[in-house]
Amino acid sequence: MLGPEWSLHPQLAVDTALVGDLALSRLLAINTAHYPWLVLVPRRLGAVELADLGSDAFPLMAEIGVVSLALKDLTGCDTINVAAIGNVVPQLHIHVVARRQSDPLWPKPIFGIAPLPRAAEADFARFVAKVKKKVAAADVA
Amino acid sequence: MLGPEWSLHPQLAVDTALVGDLALSRLLAINTAHYPWLVLVPRRLGAVELADLGSDAFPLMAEIGVVSLALKDLTGCDTINVAAIGNVVPQLHIHVVARRQSDPLWPKPIFGIAPLPRAAEADFARFVAKVKKKVAAADVA
Repeated sequence: MLGPEWSLHPQLAVDTALVGDLALSRLLAINTAHYPWLVLVPRRLGAVELADLGSDAFPLMAEIGVVSLALKDLTGCDTINVAAIGNVVPQLHIHVVARRQSDPLWPKPIFGIAPLPRAAEADFARFVAKVKKKVAAADVA
Repeated sequence: MLGPEWSLHPQLAVDTALVGDLALSRLLAINTAHYPWLVLVPRRLGAVELADLGSDAFPLMAEIGVVSLALKDLTGCDTINVAAIGNVVPQLHIHVVARRQSDPLWPKPIFGIAPLPRAAEADFARFVAKVKKKVAAADVA
């Protein structure tokens, strides 16, 4: 008999657009005007914190690396902020966000600051498509 | 001829107390009254972001796991927040922070909120000693 299967937390589904599935994680994007923002969700049932992943933490780290470099390359940002917080949504998810020294909130962290202004839907869709192409080229999907 | 050696960024040295050196990272603690707060700094010259670590990202992930579990065990917290931000201090450092649903800022992230109230120095010293013992027992030092 099959056990319960992993599925994306409904709140994450509402807040994001799908980019695609990597080997371990589902890659999502959040629409904000000034902070190109991706989210990795390891498809592991019951994982809430990084420490719950065990050896799956290693492929996650590889995926964080690939996604960070893709985001940096696409946006020309100054740095990448990475965080696993999950105080509101208790399904492990890792934010990977491009920051620029010229962005409105620099150098403050953007985690927990909501709502942030959104980009036009067409611009966001273009961003998602570019990320998808870039990450696919890195061959971790 | 030897190249330049890794040393802790002076701002991190000012903001933290030393817990000890793990295999990859220097483990530090920040004194706050309500948020037991550790910081891992991989001793890798020039590393600014997670993606700079290459294969050292894997031992880092193991150290994040060990430190998270030690913090959870010592504090009985509800969850652990992990973040690599570094918009202010450009030396890769990873925050590992215990959060309780009863803490003053729950569920908001505490990154970028400063200054936070400090614990009494004696309490903080006891916390640092407990973390040191717990992490040493996990045998990653």
